[in-house]
Amino acid sequence: MAKAPVTFESIVGTEGLPQRRAIAKAITLLESTREDHRAQADELLTALLPRTGQSFRLGISGVPGVGKSTFIETLGLFLIERGHRVAVLTIDPSSSVSGGSILGDKTRMERLSVHERAYIRPSPSSGTLGGVAEKTREAMLVCEAAGYDIVIVETVGVGQSETAVSGMTDMFVLLQLPNAGDDLQAIKKGVMELADLVVINKADLDKDAATRAQAQITSALRLFGHQGHPDHASMARDAHGQVLAQWVPQVLQISALGGVGIDAFWQAVSRFRELQTANGRLALRRQKQALAWMWERIDAGLKQAFRHHPQVRELLPQMVEQVSHGKLPASTAARSLLSAARTG
Amino acid sequence: MAKAPVTFESIVGTEGLPQRRAIAKAITLLESTREDHRAQADELLTALLPRTGQSFRLGISGVPGVGKSTFIETLGLFLIERGHRVAVLTIDPSSSVSGGSILGDKTRMERLSVHERAYIRPSPSSGTLGGVAEKTREAMLVCEAAGYDIVIVETVGVGQSETAVSGMTDMFVLLQLPNAGDDLQAIKKGVMELADLVVINKADLDKDAATRAQAQITSALRLFGHQGHPDHASMARDAHGQVLAQWVPQVLQISALGGVGIDAFWQAVSRFRELQTANGRLALRRQKQALAWMWERIDAGLKQAFRHHPQVRELLPQMVEQVSHGKLPASTAARSLLSAARTG
Repeated sequence: MAKAPVTFESIVGTEGLPQRRAIAKAITLLESTREDHRAQADELLTALLPRTGQSFRLGISGVPGVGKSTFIETLGLFLIERGHRVAVLTIDPSSSVSGGSILGDKTRMERLSVHERAYIRPSPSSGTLGGVAEKTREAMLVCEAAGYDIVIVETVGVGQSETAVSGMTDMFVLLQLPNAGDDLQAIKKGVMELADLVVINKADLDKDAATRAQAQITSALRLFGHQGHPDHASMARDAHGQVLAQWVPQVLQISALGGVGIDAFWQAVSRFRELQTANGRLALRRQKQALAWMWERIDAGLKQAFRHHPQVRELLPQMVEQVSHGKLPASTAARSLLSAARTG
Repeated sequence: MAKAPVTFESIVGTEGLPQRRAIAKAITLLESTREDHRAQADELLTALLPRTGQSFRLGISGVPGVGKSTFIETLGLFLIERGHRVAVLTIDPSSSVSGGSILGDKTRMERLSVHERAYIRPSPSSGTLGGVAEKTREAMLVCEAAGYDIVIVETVGVGQSETAVSGMTDMFVLLQLPNAGDDLQAIKKGVMELADLVVINKADLDKDAATRAQAQITSALRLFGHQGHPDHASMARDAHGQVLAQWVPQVLQISALGGVGIDAFWQAVSRFRELQTANGRLALRRQKQALAWMWERIDAGLKQAFRHHPQVRELLPQMVEQVSHGKLPASTAARSLLSAARTG
C-alpha cells in the first residue's frame, strides 16, 4: 500500500472528520481505466470493505423538474443538523450518452455542497450505464468507510438508471409532481414497482391535485407496487414461525422548497429502516445486490472480451450481414463466433 | 450430407406434401445436445434456410383457461379449409421447470392434430427458456422449409415466454377472458406492450363484460401499447418521404368454441400482414429478431463456458461466500473470476 496514491488512513483522517480531498482522490482512482490504477483500486476497496455497510443507502429518483436538488439539499441540511454526515452521489445517464449532463451543473445544492459534514460527487461522465453504476457503487463504499452515515444516490427518471439505483440502495424513493399521468408513466416503465416510498413534491402549489395524485398513486402501488413483486411476495418469519411485519409502500406530500414534510419523510425512512432491519430484509437485500452486481460485472466483462477478440472482430461483420439477410441461421452464426473466440 | 439422418429432400417429400415423420426426426435432431448431432443440425439448417421465410409467423399467448387450444384448433381448421398448411409449435415454460406441462397433454387439438395438412409439435421439455426458444425457432424453420405457410407459436401467459414468442413471430396475439383485471395483469408484466392484437375469447358467455373489457383494453393499449414502444415510435416513410400507414393494435371479441369471430380475426391478421409488408416493418422485424437471437445465443454460450471453466468452478463458491458476507467487493470478485477464466 506504500506506493498507493490514497490509503484508507488518508480518507478517514486523523481528526475523525472525513477528508474530502482524499475521498475525491480515491474516487478518481476508482474511476480510472488504467490497469495499474485498477489494481491499486482493488487493493484500496478490499482494505475499506470492513468499514463499510454501516450507513443507510437512500436512492432518490424523479423526472427533471420534480425538484430533486432542492429536496436533497433540504434533506441533507436537516440530517446534518441532527448529527448525521451526508454523502450525495449521482448517476446521470445523460452525461455518458451526450457528454452533457442533466444533473451536473455546479450551482446545485449550494449550501449543502460547502458544508464540512457533506460530500457531493457528480456522476462519472463516461462509460455505459453498467460501468457508471459500478463506479458509483464503489464510490459509495469509499464514502461509507470515510464515516458518512447517510449515502444518497440520486438519478434522473430516464432510461434504466432507476433500476441501477434501486439495485444499490436500501430504500428507493420516487419523487413525483402533483399531476396525474406521471404515475402512469412510472407504471409503464416499471419504476413504480421499485418504489418503497413515493413523495409528491411541490404539493403546496396545488393542494387538490396533490391529494388526488396521492390517492391515485396509492391505488397504483397496490396494483403495481411491491406487493406483487417476487422479492416481496414471500413472508419473512421469525424463529417461531411468526410472520414478521412487512413494509407497505407509502405516498407522502411534501414541499421541499418550503421545508414542509421533511420531518415526516425522515420518520417514514426511519420506520422503514427499523422494520427492514428487524425482519432481516435489509441484510438480505444487500446480499442479493452484491451477488447481482458480481454477476452483472462478469457478464459485462465476458461480452467485452468477446467483442474485442481478434477472430471475432474479423468474423463479426460478415456474420451480421449474413444473419440479417437470412443467409445463415442465427444460432449457427452464434456457434461459429463462440468457437472463433475459443481459439487463440 | 449422405450420412445425415434427415435431409432437406426427406422433409419436403416427393409428392409435394410435407413428410411429418421426417420433420419430427429433423426437429429431434435439432433438439439433441450431442456434439455430432449439433454439427449435422447446423448443416441441415443452413441447407433449409433458403426455403424459409415465406410463411406467416403468428404468436399466440394467454393465461391457462383462456381457451388457446380451442382457438388454435378452430383457426387451424379454418385455415386448412382455405388451402393453407398449418404448423403449431409450443413454448411451455412449465415443462422445463417442473418436467410437467401446462400445454402438453395429448388430448389437445384432436381434430387438427390428425389432419394431413397440419403439424403439431409440443414444447421441448428440457433446458432454459432461452434454450427452448432456440429449439422452437429452429423447428419453425424446418416447418417453413417443409411448406407450412402458417406457423403458429403458442405459449402460456406465465414468466418471460411471451417475450420469447413475440421475439420470433411476425405478429403477437394476446388472448384475454371477458373480465376486468386481466388487462391490468398484462400491463403489469409488460405483455400488453407486445400485443399487435388482443382477442377477447368466450365473449358469448357474458356479452356486457366482453364489451366493457374491449373498451378497457382499447384504452390500455393506447396508454401502454405499441404507440409508446420504441420499436414503433418512429414513422416509416416511403421513397418520397411520405409517412406510411402503421398498424394500430386492435381488440376483437370472439367465441372460439362457437366458431364466432374467426373470420374477422383472420381478416385483421391479413390486414396486419399486408400493411407490415408494404411499410417494410415485417422485414425489419425479422432482421432485428435474427440479430437479437444471434446475440442472445452468444451471451448464453459465453455464460455457459464461463460457469463450466475449471478454474471458475473451483473459485466460485468461496467468491460467492465472501461477496455475500461483505468480505470482498463484488467488482473485485468479478475481476478475479474473469481473469481465472482467461487462464488455461
